[in-house]
Parts: sequence; structure tokens; C-alpha cells
Amino acid sequence: MTSRTQTFRARDFHLVCGTLPSGPLNAITDVAGVAVGHRTVREGDILTGFTAIQPHPGDLFRQKVRCGVEIINGFGKSAGLLQVAELGQVETPLLLGNTFAIGTGFDALVSRALAANPDIGRETGTVNPVVLECNDGWLSDIRARHLTEADAFAALDGARGAAVEEGAVGAGTGMSAFGFKGGIGTASRIMTLDGRPFTLGALVLANFGTPGDLVLPDGRRPLPTHEPSLNERERGSVIVVLATDIPMESRQLKRVARRAGAGLARLGAFWGNGSGDIALAFTTANPIGHHDRADLLPLSVLNENRIDHAFRAAAEATQEAVLNAMLAAPATTGRDGHHRPSLADVLTAWPSP
Amino acid sequence: MTSRTQTFRARDFHLVCGTLPSGPLNAITDVAGVAVGHRTVREGDILTGFTAIQPHPGDLFRQKVRCGVEIINGFGKSAGLLQVAELGQVETPLLLGNTFAIGTGFDALVSRALAANPDIGRETGTVNPVVLECNDGWLSDIRARHLTEADAFAALDGARGAAVEEGAVGAGTGMSAFGFKGGIGTASRIMTLDGRPFTLGALVLANFGTPGDLVLPDGRRPLPTHEPSLNERERGSVIVVLATDIPMESRQLKRVARRAGAGLARLGAFWGNGSGDIALAFTTANPIGHHDRADLLPLSVLNENRIDHAFRAAAEATQEAVLNAMLAAPATTGRDGHHRPSLADVLTAWPSP
Amino acid sequence: MTSRTQTFRARDFHLVCGTLPSGPLNAITDVAGVAVGHRTVREGDILTGFTAIQPHPGDLFRQKVRCGVEIINGFGKSAGLLQVAELGQVETPLLLGNTFAIGTGFDALVSRALAANPDIGRETGTVNPVVLECNDGWLSDIRARHLTEADAFAALDGARGAAVEEGAVGAGTGMSAFGFKGGIGTASRIMTLDGRPFTLGALVLANFGTPGDLVLPDGRRPLPTHEPSLNERERGSVIVVLATDIPMESRQLKRVARRAGAGLARLGAFWGNGSGDIALAFTTANPIGHHDRADLLPLSVLNENRIDHAFRAAAEATQEAVLNAMLAAPATTGRDGHHRPSLADVLTAWPSP
Amino acid sequence: MTSRTQTFRARDFHLVCGTLPSGPLNAITDVAGVAVGHRTVREGDILTGFTAIQPHPGDLFRQKVRCGVEIINGFGKSAGLLQVAELGQVETPLLLGNTFAIGTGFDALVSRALAANPDIGRETGTVNPVVLECNDGWLSDIRARHLTEADAFAALDGARGAAVEEGAVGAGTGMSAFGFKGGIGTASRIMTLDGRPFTLGALVLANFGTPGDLVLPDGRRPLPTHEPSLNERERGSVIVVLATDIPMESRQLKRVARRAGAGLARLGAFWGNGSGDIALAFTTANPIGHHDRADLLPLSVLNENRIDHAFRAAAEATQEAVLNAMLAAPATTGRDGHHRPSLADVLTAWPSP
Repeated sequence: MTSRTQTFRARDFHLVCGTLPSGPLNAITDVAGVAVGHRTVREGDILTGFTAIQPHPGDLFRQKVRCGVEIINGFGKSAGLLQVAELGQVETPLLLGNTFAIGTGFDALVSRALAANPDIGRETGTVNPVVLECNDGWLSDIRARHLTEADAFAALDGARGAAVEEGAVGAGTGMSAFGFKGGIGTASRIMTLDGRPFTLGALVLANFGTPGDLVLPDGRRPLPTHEPSLNERERGSVIVVLATDIPMESRQLKRVARRAGAGLARLGAFWGNGSGDIALAFTTANPIGHHDRADLLPLSVLNENRIDHAFRAAAEATQEAVLNAMLAAPATTGRDGHHRPSLADVLTAWPSP
Repeated sequence: MTSRTQTFRARDFHLVCGTLPSGPLNAITDVAGVAVGHRTVREGDILTGFTAIQPHPGDLFRQKVRCGVEIINGFGKSAGLLQVAELGQVETPLLLGNTFAIGTGFDALVSRALAANPDIGRETGTVNPVVLECNDGWLSDIRARHLTEADAFAALDGARGAAVEEGAVGAGTGMSAFGFKGGIGTASRIMTLDGRPFTLGALVLANFGTPGDLVLPDGRRPLPTHEPSLNERERGSVIVVLATDIPMESRQLKRVARRAGAGLARLGAFWGNGSGDIALAFTTANPIGHHDRADLLPLSVLNENRIDHAFRAAAEATQEAVLNAMLAAPATTGRDGHHRPSLADVLTAWPSP
Repeated sequence: MTSRTQTFRARDFHLVCGTLPSGPLNAITDVAGVAVGHRTVREGDILTGFTAIQPHPGDLFRQKVRCGVEIINGFGKSAGLLQVAELGQVETPLLLGNTFAIGTGFDALVSRALAANPDIGRETGTVNPVVLECNDGWLSDIRARHLTEADAFAALDGARGAAVEEGAVGAGTGMSAFGFKGGIGTASRIMTLDGRPFTLGALVLANFGTPGDLVLPDGRRPLPTHEPSLNERERGSVIVVLATDIPMESRQLKRVARRAGAGLARLGAFWGNGSGDIALAFTTANPIGHHDRADLLPLSVLNENRIDHAFRAAAEATQEAVLNAMLAAPATTGRDGHHRPSLADVLTAWPSP
Repeated sequence: MTSRTQTFRARDFHLVCGTLPSGPLNAITDVAGVAVGHRTVREGDILTGFTAIQPHPGDLFRQKVRCGVEIINGFGKSAGLLQVAELGQVETPLLLGNTFAIGTGFDALVSRALAANPDIGRETGTVNPVVLECNDGWLSDIRARHLTEADAFAALDGARGAAVEEGAVGAGTGMSAFGFKGGIGTASRIMTLDGRPFTLGALVLANFGTPGDLVLPDGRRPLPTHEPSLNERERGSVIVVLATDIPMESRQLKRVARRAGAGLARLGAFWGNGSGDIALAFTTANPIGHHDRADLLPLSVLNENRIDHAFRAAAEATQEAVLNAMLAAPATTGRDGHHRPSLADVLTAWPSP
């Protein structure tokens, strides 16, 4: 279905988004403790998968992470965000998949939480699985509903705090962006606060953007080689997960998540009607113990006057993560011969001035 | 597990909420076209089920209904509300179940939508299932995850536009409220607009309220006969579905949904931290055709200066629906001998002055 | 215009809202550092004024307080809430007045901030005045726009951390509630956290509620002696200010502010279309220094699992504060002979059973 | 203070934002009925003013326009948006000014509404003035609070449905953007719906953006010639007013308003912490009569499946309006010798390739 084994990143084409330095991996896993795993499924007309993000190596239900969520455009079916918005907490790993895999992903995260926490549904409450999605139905037979709980477990169990495989992998296997092949991408930025380095990383599931709208950071506007149809345009979405070790309260994290939208807009997107554009930002600082006994809890938070650093990092890392997703993905032919060219092929043939 | 076959409603005890007249059934099904179905599961330690609400008899994906949603307190796992909030549309029947049945309910609604609409995931986009939940884990073994897609289909297929069975049925089978047995309840109100009668109906899945906090419309405060534990208090939630035939835009419907919270508060609730209190209001007027060809669509909407009628109806019907849910439910013993007394038993023994 | 000098409070009529103990003054000033001042204007057809709340004795611009705001119903003209919602900070005293005094109140708070902070508009940014309002046009000639900056200064300068004068004073001078005379009322609740007592206090500007809808905590429904007209019903509003010394982040304070709506609903309100129902909650803990140099700031926040204490306190104190406002206010005749009876007169003649 | 009388627009430099055609004036006044007026004040260290937007030639209180508002970043003091968000209506002209002129602008709009509507505050309710602001304190002595109600009246009375004067005029007189001189700019886009042309226009008050962040549509990054200080960076803001004749409900208009943020981000902005970035979109279609007698009102609304046209137009017109604002403004020296270079001077010296 796909060709070419070499994968590119934006910086291979001298495309740099913004001015902040990136982390050593230029990936969400530059944030200490964060791990990413993929389960890729390619079988005939099925090009799909799951991607899992572990905010830290421990049990998320016991040690929740603080977060904020921004609904950039709510044409989406992601699960769990209601409670995330109310409480500012994530209490499961984050699972990314295709639209019709939301139920399966929900079940998989419940299964894992029940297995690890015998008190759930007994001495304590339930658990709130977070499953995020895009529609990969252009390249993949989404009606087949191929993904299983076992696929979700494979993504969860494969999570590693190392370089992240990008492009047509995991949940990104069948995704498209701006008429090109899309998928999973990541990037990171480093900031100094109180004399110490802090990191903000982005991971995107890029499946958005109208063909012809893409703008590169150098102003070029690469065109996919085929014409979009109306149906195609209506089925986008993008998921942006931001991780950081900067201590923030959930209101601040929501503000940071909002800036993912700026990164998307700089690429030429206008958050189209049919695009479920969701950004979730979490911090590994100040985790919340499910069984914390104290009534008052100490924490540390970012001085609001310094939050522009995190805003800038969120916009830059999101923008670059999308380019990384597109450039890592090879040209792909999927369901019913539907084809997506690779942005890397266009750029390879068209060097920047 | 449960005793007594006679079921009561609030008005059997001369409890009336507010001043507006009720419809002929005093039920959500007083709104023409709305149908309700239950699937009740009682097997050993399992007391659970699904309840389905059909906004109209046709295919919801083809003819969507306008709606608004209000997150009274977001400690909940309900699916589909993101898109509902953005677009102001519901495009599947509404399914109510227990917390861990969200995945199953999602899958069941996708199955039905795919079967009825071969273009989903092919020529058109996906579908947004709406599944609403409370935690019935006090009376039922929620960890068993007993409900299946077949159970959801049974609720959907059983939907009738007639009197609604209340109390410990469907999704309400294992629910509790204010330390008493809770469950499904409904009520309706009639208003006159431009000389014609219009109806607003509520259906609640009542599983909220701290024991001791319940206040009846006549000021009495019935106490359950046993003492709550801390764990018990933390696991509430209430779902309120409001249906009307008053033409409204989604902003107006969201405002109406918000008033469900007033109905809950009048019962003594304060929308506790651990309670997922969700209200969704839809109108059967001005449905939205999925394949509408025109760019501009005519509709009729309520004059905002008259919306207090709908606000009052929403608060009254919600309050009375909760009382109906509690009064229809018999005393019930469930998982591990956990027991909920019946509010009707207390009121029968304690006539109003 | 008004008669009777004795003022009552709810507890004089054995009306108690909820179960938590009140503070020594049963007032917002039970929260250490909080002060309240009134400027009452009564001249012919003018019955109006300003009420000021000082969150702490220092300069608010230099030491901001953390807060959250809930728009229960947004039919209101209050100023400054946009920034309050974004940043979770209040940086001026809170000024309450009538609808057309928003501009004057804004100017007065700017004047004071400029005088105290020569760096505003020079080396640092501007300042965000918070002015909250109801429409007292039924009893007072609001078109006369009588209030001046000097009136606002008088309210600010008169702020004291002592017992709060209630009823037809300050901003409450010309207000109405449920067809009775309304005005300013206050109440407080005490909670224990980590073994220490904490306080939450409410101050309301009560100008809301349809005649006939009022329900007392004992279930009685007192009726005003005259019939409302349509115009009258459309012009309500209520402002609820909640103060506490419980350390909370702004997301938590917003959740607490929301529960003021439960207190209002228990009185029979449904947050009518034309009523600007606004709740703002601030904490005196963890103030934010405008010139804080550190990038990361330590703070202490409430364990979310304990927040129900604050929710309950907010609902109870709001409900009781409204009753205190009404019971302290004598029958009043204002503009064009418009009259409001006193709830205290009705209750004095109608003892509880 | 300022030099050069010739003013430029983006298209003079072959800078075009997006692909949709512009209207005949490429201005907000391409929307039939919309008028704009300026009052410019330049006296010594005072460089400020008011700009007024009349949504239609009639009395706004009698014939309100439907609208939606999006708080892109809420570090702002604009008045009236609370009620706008709740009701989806604007009932006064829109007044743009500087931060400390909010009170004056509020008073001016109240004065006009009272004069034209003797029933306000008597037989009917009050009125909700909408006043929007940025901080012009870098170039102007904002502490002097120079603007008067008469200045606001002059802007209102000068409103014309013709070509809009851009740059350093009206509320834009003292504003800055990306380290350059900012101010007032406008642009428009044309779409075809149901075979007829419709227009969406933007007017911006541009006072935002960190020096060095500006990106032109062709990828160039012009730098201002002086170095920003920290204080300078913290004091931005941008107001975007979108007008259209496309019939939409308020939920849709809010969605359209949100896309203004995409236009800003494409210029290099990330909606900084200290920037009050507000977008308000109104439609001249389906006005709301204050005294409408019918309970149910007919209207026409845009098919949601076609809303991408309006989204794209909003992003493009906002982006181009900002460039027009900057390019029309000459280099300016203001308070204390503070200086802003002109973007047009930089571009004139630096032709595009």
C-alpha cells in the first residue's frame, strides 16, 4: 500500500516553526516520564490503529495528572472530555484511534483500570477513560470496525519514553492532512523558568485541512496532485496532546491548550465545520493522588505573567508536529484505491530557495 | 430483590411541582413523536439496564433534531456531548445506561446507524452517538459489565410513545437518590404560544442527592432509614432529558436545559462534586435534514421574551420527574446486600398534614 | 418613603437554610479581612446607591485575589467579568450599583487605582474594574443617572469588617425581590478542614424573582399584596458575591460560584430570562502579587474530594443571604408611587406553625 | 507627530489573504446598511479616539441584530459582552475606544438610547451598551482619560456606509501592532449562497502582536527598527468586528467569530496572555424587534454544511484587515517620545520578490 522506508522530519527540509529551541528528541517524550506506543493495523482495506500516551509510568487512576482541554471545533466524538473539563484531571492513559473505535477504546481503558484497581466500582467511584479520535474513513474501511481491545492493549503496552515513530503509524495509519497523507507527528520546545529548563511537547493526530490551504513556514504552498471532492473535504479532524513539566493549574493548562489552535491556523487551517479539533494539555507536575488524605494540598504553579513562554511553545510545537506527521508519512493507497500523496515527495522535488 | 408491585407518582401524594398544567400522560411522551423504551436486567447481583429515547419515529441521522446541552456538573462519562454542544444537533436516539456501558451503548448506536445508512463512512461522514450514564454500582455489580449491544437494541426497539414505565426499570434499575431507591421518572408541562398548546416533557435518570438533603414541595424532609457511608455519597449523577415541540434555536435550548438544574436544587441538591449532572433539551420542531440541499433554511423560533414559559416548565417538570422516579421505585436490595428503601413507603406511612 | 426602623434577619423567624453552622456575624465579613461599605442615596424619586466589597485591606492591584465567576443567567451589564474569567483574578474592590451606574463605577475604580498606582498606564498595564449591577428602575428613577464617582468613593471609604447593614441600603436601596422589597443581605458558613475552621460568606444584591414564586425553607409561600405587571416581571437580577479563606484555584472557585444558583433555585427562582444572575467567588488565600518576581509560585489548594463542603456552604449562605436582604428591608414606596411590601411584615403577621 | 499623507492597503503591496473575492470597497461597509464613524483626538501627548460601528441605520434598541461573541483571550475590559453571549443580540451601536474610556463609552451609549427611547427604565427594561477597547497607553497618555461623551457622539454621528478611513484614526489613533504603528483596518469577502451573493466584512482595532512575530502572507517577516521592552510586550489587544448579511443564528455567529482567531494566528500571533483578543460577529439578517408581539418568529438560517464559506471569509478578512490597519498608519511618535515605525515604510523599501 505504501512505498519508501525513509522518513523525514520538518527540519530535514529546513522548515522550523518559531524561535524556541527544541528538546533532544524534538518529541513529546522529551517531557520526562511521558511514553508513547503505537498499534498499527494494515490488512487489505483496513489502514488504522491505536496510539497510546502514558503521562507517567505509574497508575494514572492512583496518580492523576492535572490538565486542561480546549475544544477548538467540536465536530468530534472523543470520550471523557466532559469530566476532564470539570475536574482538570486525567486518570487514564490517553488513547487515540478512529471514530468508530471510541467504544472499544473506552472498554479497553476500563478493563485496564478495573484490573489494576479492585476498588473501582466497589469502595470508590468509577473511572473516566479518555479516548480521542479522527475519521480515517477515506483511506480505511472504517465501517468494518476492525479494532479490538487487544489492539488498544498493544498500543498501551508498547509505550516507550523514547523517540516517537511518526507518520502512518498507530492511530495515524489511515489519516490525511491538506490532501496529503497525514498521521502522527510530534515536536517539543524548551523554556527556562527560575533558572531551570522546562519542556513542552506536542503529539498530533493530523487528519485535517482542505487541499490547497497548506502554508509552510517559509510561505510556500504545496499542492497535492489530485483534486479533492466535496465528501473528502467534510471529513477532517485533528487531535493535539500537549505535555509539559511546567507546574500549572488547570485553568492555565486550558489556556495553553487553546494555543494549539494558533499552530494549526499558521498552517492554513481555519478549523473547518466538519473537523473535530481538540487540544488537551497536561502537566506531569503536581500529580493528584486518588487517596490523598489531606484537605489542603500544596502545589506550585506558573506565574501567569510568564505564561507566554508556554503559549508560544504550544503554538510552535503543534505547528511543527503536524509537519512532522505529514513528512514522515509515505504516499499511501487505501480503501477503494483512494490515494494520498506524500508531502515529502513534493518537497524533495521542490527544494526551498 | 424488590417487593411491592403497585407504583406511585408524586401526585398520588398530592405533591405538585409548580403551577403549570401537565400533559395528558404527565410524561415526556406527551411531546408528539417522542418514544421511550426500557431494557431491564436483573440477574443475581446485576440490577441494571438501558433506556432509549427516540426524539421522533424516523431515522435520526437523516432527520436530526435541534438541541442544547448544559453540563450542570461535569463529573460524568456521557458520550457525544461535545458535538451536540458545537452543532446543536442530535443525530441518534438517546441511550441511557450505566457508566461502564458507555462503550457498549456507543457501539450499539453505531451499529444501528451503519445498518440504516450505507453512506456513513463512505460518501458521507461518521455519526455521533449520544449515550448518557449514571453509576449504579451501589446496588449492582457494575464491574461485571453485563450489558450487551443486544440489551441496547432491546431498549431501542421497545420504544413507545405511550405512558412511560417509571422507577426501577431500564437504566434506572440499579440507581439511587437521596439515600432512597431512584431510577427513571418523567413529567410534562403545557404552555400556550400564539394561541396554540405546546408541550415540554422531562425524563430523568435519578441517581443523585445526599441522604438527608431531600426536600418535598410541601417542605417535608423525608429521611432514609439507614446511614450513608462516605463512599456512597461520592457516587451520584443525574441525567435530565427535556423534549419539547416549541420551536427554538440551540442557544435557547441550552438555556432551557440549564433550568433543569433549578428543578434539582429545589429538591435539596447542590450538584455535588462527584455527581455527573447533565441536561439535554431537544425540540421536535425544525428538524435538520442531513441532505438538505438549500444553503439557507427557513425555521421558526421562540420569541426570547417568552422563554420564561419554557424555563418554568423545565424546572417544574424536572423536579416532578425526580419525585416520580423515586416514588415508582420499590425498596430494593442489591449487590452484597446493599439496600435502598422506597420513598413511597415513607410517604405512605407519613401522610401530609 | 419607608417605615419601620427595626430590621429582621431570617433566623428571627426561625428560618434556617441548611445544616452548616454560621459564623459569628453570619455575614461575609466573617471572612477575615473582608470589609463592606454602603452609600445610600434617597432623594425624591431616587432610591439607589453603591455597595463596596473590599476583599482585603491592602491595595487590590498590588495584591490580587484569586476568584471564579459563574454567569447563572447573562442578562446583565456587569463590567470586568471577561478578564476575571480568563485570569481568575480580581484586582479592584468589587462595586455593586444600579445598571446605569456601571460607567460611573468603572470610572471611580479607575480613579482610585490610578491614584494609588502611578505605574498603571506607564510602566505596567491598565486595571480591570469589577462593577456589578441590578436594575432598580421600578422604585427609583434610574433614567436620572444620579450616582457620581463621589458616591462610589463613599461606599469604598466606608468599608468595614464588621456587621453588615442589610436591606434597603447601598446598592440595595431601590431593589425588589419576589414582589417584595429586596436589597442587600449576607450570611456565612463555617467548615473544618485539616482540623482548622474555615469560613465562606455570601453577600447578595437581591432584585430577582417573580411574585408568587418565593418558597421559604419551611415550605411556606408568602405572597406580596399587589399584582405584578408584565413589565415588572421582566426586570430582575441578582448579584451574589462569595468570599472564603479556603485556599482554592480559580477553577474550584468557579465551581463554588455556580452553587449560588442552587441557593437561588431553592427560594423558587428559575433564573428568569430577564434576570442578570451573576455569582463571583474569591478567596483571601494565596493572593497574587502584581510584581511577583518568581516564575513558579507556591500555593495551597483544596483537595477536590472535599469541595462539597464549600458547595453546600455556598448554596446555604446564598439562600439565607437573600432572605436576610428581604427581611431587613421595610415596605417602601418609590418612583411614581410604586410600592413594595416588606416580607417581614407578612411573616410577623403569619407566625410559622 | 506623524508624517506622510498617502495611505496604503495590503493589496498595494500585492499582499492578498486567502482566495475568496473581496467586496467593492474591501471593507465592512460592503455589508449593506453597515456604517463606520471615527473621532480622532490628537493633542500633545494624547493620541486616541473613538470608532463607531452602526450595524444598520435604524435604532438598534428597537431593531436588535443577532450576533455571537468569541473571547479569543479574555485579558480585556470590554463592556456588554455578557449579555451579548447570553441572548445573541446587540442592541446599541458598537463603540471602540481605549481601555479607560469604557465608562465614558458606556455612558454615551446609554445617553443616546435614553434619548431615543423614553420607555427605557420606565415601561421596558434597560439597555446593554457594547464598548470594546484596547490599551493605547504606549503612544498616548491614557492616564489623562481625555475622551468625553461628546467624542463618542462625534464618532456615532459621523458613521457613513462608505469607504472606511484606516490606520491611525478613531480608536486606532494610538494603537500599535507587532512593534509597528497599528490602528483601524477593514476588509471584506463575497460568497454565493443559493445563487445570490452575500458579504462578510471585518473591522479590526489592531493593537497586538510581539515585535518580530509578524509574518506576511508571502512568508516575509518584517522587523520594526527598534527593540521592544518587556513592558511594551505586555500591553496588546485586538478587537475584531465581523458583519455579514448571511442569515445565521447566534450559535453559528459565535462559530464564525472564533475564526477571527485563525486570521490573527496566520499573522504570527499566539493570542498572548496580556492581549484582550475579542471577536464579535453580527448579521443584518433577521433583526429582532424589541416589541415583537408574536410568540413564534420566522427566520432563515444558514445550512450548517455551508458554514465553511463564512469561516474562511472570517479568517481571511480578519488577516487582511490587520494588514490594512498597519499599512495605512504612518510612523508615529507619541507620549514621552515613544515611537512606532510604519510597516508601509518597511515594505516600500523592501519590495517583494
